[in-house]
Amino acid sequence: MNVLFNKKTTMNIKEKALQLHRENNGKLEINRKVELKTKEDLSLIYTPGVAEPCKEIYKDKNNAYLYTIKGTTIAMITNGTAVLGLGNISPVAGLPVLEGKALLLKEFGDVNAFPICVDSYDPDEIVKTIQLIAPGFGGIHLEDIKAPECFYIENQLKEKLDIPVYHDDQHGTAVAVLAGLYNSVKVLNKKLGELKIVINGAGASGIAIARILLAAGAKHIVLCDINGAIFEGDIMLNDAQREISECTNREYEVGHLEDIIKNKDVFIGVSVENVLTQEMVQTMNQDSVIFALANPVPEIMPDLAKAGGARIIATGRSDFPNQINNLLVFPGIFKGALEVRAQDITDEMKLAAARAIADLVTNKELNENYIIPDAFDKRVSLAVAEAVKQVAQSTGNRKYIAI
Amino acid sequence: MNVLFNKKTTMNIKEKALQLHRENNGKLEINRKVELKTKEDLSLIYTPGVAEPCKEIYKDKNNAYLYTIKGTTIAMITNGTAVLGLGNISPVAGLPVLEGKALLLKEFGDVNAFPICVDSYDPDEIVKTIQLIAPGFGGIHLEDIKAPECFYIENQLKEKLDIPVYHDDQHGTAVAVLAGLYNSVKVLNKKLGELKIVINGAGASGIAIARILLAAGAKHIVLCDINGAIFEGDIMLNDAQREISECTNREYEVGHLEDIIKNKDVFIGVSVENVLTQEMVQTMNQDSVIFALANPVPEIMPDLAKAGGARIIATGRSDFPNQINNLLVFPGIFKGALEVRAQDITDEMKLAAARAIADLVTNKELNENYIIPDAFDKRVSLAVAEAVKQVAQSTGNRKYIAI
Repeated sequence: MNVLFNKKTTMNIKEKALQLHRENNGKLEINRKVELKTKEDLSLIYTPGVAEPCKEIYKDKNNAYLYTIKGTTIAMITNGTAVLGLGNISPVAGLPVLEGKALLLKEFGDVNAFPICVDSYDPDEIVKTIQLIAPGFGGIHLEDIKAPECFYIENQLKEKLDIPVYHDDQHGTAVAVLAGLYNSVKVLNKKLGELKIVINGAGASGIAIARILLAAGAKHIVLCDINGAIFEGDIMLNDAQREISECTNREYEVGHLEDIIKNKDVFIGVSVENVLTQEMVQTMNQDSVIFALANPVPEIMPDLAKAGGARIIATGRSDFPNQINNLLVFPGIFKGALEVRAQDITDEMKLAAARAIADLVTNKELNENYIIPDAFDKRVSLAVAEAVKQVAQSTGNRKYIAI
Repeated sequence: MNVLFNKKTTMNIKEKALQLHRENNGKLEINRKVELKTKEDLSLIYTPGVAEPCKEIYKDKNNAYLYTIKGTTIAMITNGTAVLGLGNISPVAGLPVLEGKALLLKEFGDVNAFPICVDSYDPDEIVKTIQLIAPGFGGIHLEDIKAPECFYIENQLKEKLDIPVYHDDQHGTAVAVLAGLYNSVKVLNKKLGELKIVINGAGASGIAIARILLAAGAKHIVLCDINGAIFEGDIMLNDAQREISECTNREYEVGHLEDIIKNKDVFIGVSVENVLTQEMVQTMNQDSVIFALANPVPEIMPDLAKAGGARIIATGRSDFPNQINNLLVFPGIFKGALEVRAQDITDEMKLAAARAIADLVTNKELNENYIIPDAFDKRVSLAVAEAVKQVAQSTGNRKYIAI
């Protein structure tokens, strides 16, 4: 009965989603934000008046922040190699996701985002292309680019560009997870540094989660992928995995998830549906925390995790409590970064963003089923933006320019 | 008195233009065109629903026209090397012009255009960059790229891409000039093929004007630049000039504009202010036609041209009769091309566009001071789009796909 009902709902959403995209020919439009009624309006917007801002920008390219859309607009870029759970489906097939996220960035962060599909699988070619189109943008949001190329592309761009570069699949997920974990330890009255954590999935998200948890004070992390636990010295690792292997799994645990999960406090899944069983949850420590973030079907359904003894359960879905979603993160991150013209999105900003999200849940509200604010809560992006701005301004290094 | 008044007006426009751009931080914004009120809306726009259009596009990339903004959106691209009369002022300094034209394309053609500044002066690098970001766009509008690189870039892109590519500085100007000339010969009761025409300026616009006039039946054209008349065999010519020299100036006229202008019927200026004098106009044939299109100050002011004996006088300015402006052309061209998914903007389409613009002036309305519709006349883009669509559909060659 329940299964049938779920199937029906899923079918309806699929049909409705196709209809919505088809009837509107996509989800975005580009509009003027100035008046155009008279010939004088035309003479200011276009020739001859438009020559004046051009000349000002020629004198000082930073004037582009003042006279153009640069300061309020980012590029949202994919090459379509890691789209949702669908994988490598071609650059233009990733466009609906970009449009959706662009729309959400405007709605929640008041930042304009334009989707760009880059038709290349060559990391250097992608870096070059983004570098060449960067002058008109205030930031670069990378999306759905597969690991390990995504790390190289992001690092190269961070080095070459003077605008913030941010890969949402890594950092959006990582910040949202950390926010959820900050409040989980509060509920459990524990410390992050004492938790034994297993992260299932060693791609872009998994590695970024490990990195931010380490930066936040976590000490015991084991990353697993389909071949089992990642450990230092494994010759099968890619560069990013090798790097993270040097600060995780210091006990050199080996084996597959079913072995590694034993006596752990926290499971964070950024992998695929149904890889975690009730029995595996039963082998975890008491008061276990399960973040089963695979979408749309999580690594374990909440009722099974509960039955296995989990105390706090979060998913990526809006139809269960504790939705851990990047939507909590990227609008505020870019809103804040653009407002202070930050030239980078630093680890400090991400940590502050996670703390700001967590702190929106008051001690009175906080409980097992409410560890993270609702994705529709408009206070979130404002709080994240504020936190990002404060860090940017207090850091005061060469990465930030005074305005 | 008149001079003082003009100066004051110019200063006001400059100040107002800066203010308008500064107060709004540019002129465009990106908005959603679908509702976002409920969690169900979110599930259709974003995960999990958004996976469905992604999968449809993965199956057939042409589905991007149906489910995304591709079919209604073009990229408006510059490298900032030939911006207005300002010249090479850097890629991002060309952004205010791109924003202005994008805004006009939406207003008059209902086409979304996003401005992209490409940070390169290397034609092959520019081609490659545009090629790599093309999948998400329905067309490419090149803008303010200097000659002769603009010819190479346009030709290469036309060859490599399956979406229309159009360089407005060439074709917009050329189509608008031809429209004006179609109606000028009607007023004068002459034939295009018998007119002796001098085009002053042998860059992107001048060469494109020569090309379209030849395609429309003009037979006697001499192109001049700062060094004088262009003739076949001159070793100083660039590739595009060399090509056009083979079908213009068949009398091998030599000398500067003041020599070449003698006994001509038509002067078309796409050069710089005040290069044509009243005395030079006096040496032209009776009933001469002067299109003095330099902006904001034309090659000759209309009162002087009149005093020199010109019968029909057009400029690029809105404060004189007969404004010849690209705004008459590009919105309709892209509107029509996108509506039938044309894969190219062909010469036939441009000729049809010019005829459609000219034909909006009825025989009853037509006179020396009204040879071309007003730039604000919303019928223009509709008529141009209709003409472009008819040509695209009747041509039926491999350049057009059935929809």
